[in-house]
Amino acid sequence: MKIIYSIDEMRDQSRQAKDEGKVLGFVPTMGCLHEGHLSLVQRSLAACDFTIVSIFINPTQFGENEDLETYPADLPGDRRNLEALGVDVLFLPSHRQIYPDGYKTFVSVEDITTRLCGKSRPGFFRGVATVVLKLFNIVQPDIAFFGEKDRQQLQVIQTMVRDLNLQVSVAGLPIVREPDGLAMSSRNVYLSPEQRPSALALHKALKTAAGLVKNGETSANKIKETMRRIIGREKHAEIDYISVCDTQTFADKESIDSRALIALAVRVGKARLIDNCIVERN
Amino acid sequence: MKIIYSIDEMRDQSRQAKDEGKVLGFVPTMGCLHEGHLSLVQRSLAACDFTIVSIFINPTQFGENEDLETYPADLPGDRRNLEALGVDVLFLPSHRQIYPDGYKTFVSVEDITTRLCGKSRPGFFRGVATVVLKLFNIVQPDIAFFGEKDRQQLQVIQTMVRDLNLQVSVAGLPIVREPDGLAMSSRNVYLSPEQRPSALALHKALKTAAGLVKNGETSANKIKETMRRIIGREKHAEIDYISVCDTQTFADKESIDSRALIALAVRVGKARLIDNCIVERN
Repeated sequence: MKIIYSIDEMRDQSRQAKDEGKVLGFVPTMGCLHEGHLSLVQRSLAACDFTIVSIFINPTQFGENEDLETYPADLPGDRRNLEALGVDVLFLPSHRQIYPDGYKTFVSVEDITTRLCGKSRPGFFRGVATVVLKLFNIVQPDIAFFGEKDRQQLQVIQTMVRDLNLQVSVAGLPIVREPDGLAMSSRNVYLSPEQRPSALALHKALKTAAGLVKNGETSANKIKETMRRIIGREKHAEIDYISVCDTQTFADKESIDSRALIALAVRVGKARLIDNCIVERN
Repeated sequence: MKIIYSIDEMRDQSRQAKDEGKVLGFVPTMGCLHEGHLSLVQRSLAACDFTIVSIFINPTQFGENEDLETYPADLPGDRRNLEALGVDVLFLPSHRQIYPDGYKTFVSVEDITTRLCGKSRPGFFRGVATVVLKLFNIVQPDIAFFGEKDRQQLQVIQTMVRDLNLQVSVAGLPIVREPDGLAMSSRNVYLSPEQRPSALALHKALKTAAGLVKNGETSANKIKETMRRIIGREKHAEIDYISVCDTQTFADKESIDSRALIALAVRVGKARLIDNCIVERN
């Protein structure tokens, strides 16, 4: 596995691989890789001829009081994992290279970013869209892989790609969970042994909600009320949002007619955790 | 000259030209082409193997009370001019193709867009940056050509290209003027015969300002005062702004130490006209 630190070298490497007729797969990450990330890498390795993974903790997507300074990192572990899978390039640009002095340009996707996580984290999706566009322009991938845990992020990237006429396919892959159901997240390392059981409430609430829908419940309020009760039992858990909404626009739904997204964000100690599922009525 | 209406066909055409090893030159315009535009086209024809000109009146760069509805158009004349010069492709995308229903993504360049025209026309540079990025992504040019009359626009594009890691060179070309000094602009057609002489005040004011600097004047206030007096004499002219500022950031200067931009915008009847020059002290 080649490790590339410079934007120019990354560009040259991608151009060379393209000249050789290779299909380029790309997995942008913030590191501290877990099974969720690795499932994206494995899909890229299976679908593409040349796989690039980037690790860049992107400052522009963190708010003032968020965890930029303490965001977990494990570069030696990440390298070993990626090398073992057979990744071609690990791209590790510096903050100064990505955001040099005098940096001024930002990309915003409107409307869909005002809801769910965008409401709790103003500026988050602007930072995400900006860095992903930059990375796409540098790496020039044919296919880029994102996880469905961050479903709103996936939708923001897909919208940006369509709107800005970018020539990359964006693939969304299913959430990977711990054996007990907790969605994999780099921020799970924040959970203390006492907090860890409370974190299960997200998945429990989603499973219960999906069960209600399966049994004919259509009222968004009743579903959210049940979810709130499940999470309310956990003393370490504090709800940020629970939403039953449109799968594309994330606009709140009052009742589930055919298809809906159920999404939630919950703080458990220092960790802000998110999870979601799509429900369908027959 | 090939006329292309569809984004996909434009993309294919550019890819084909690139595959043939050609260097692609691109001149994005809003049509009603004048000698200023044509100087950009000629430079592209001289510097590149394959020249693409786009005509697209971009709605997102017009404000509520601006002249989107009445912006001048002369497609038959433009076609003849471009054909005569030997342009390879005229790209004419529709509004619906560029901004389909549900369009949501915008690019903003901060800081430098808050001054000069950005102050008088909020949203203008956001619209410009967004459409230029889209056109770059579709046309995939190696070099793109812009006029220095819109010096702030040129700087915005150059900043966007640098910040977003785009692989295109941006070339700025000198202002082209009528024999009497009026800077060429598609909006000059708005001027009535009575208003036309008033429009000369912009160039006169700039020439006088440059003369003052050459003779040792360093005070921005004195220079702007003189310019205001010259324009004030014209009954059809109404000053939007006059600025003596940094050539890169457009921040106001109190005195001219080495190099400065002198820029102004003046309304003459329905036409909002802009002009500028760079002055240097030895």
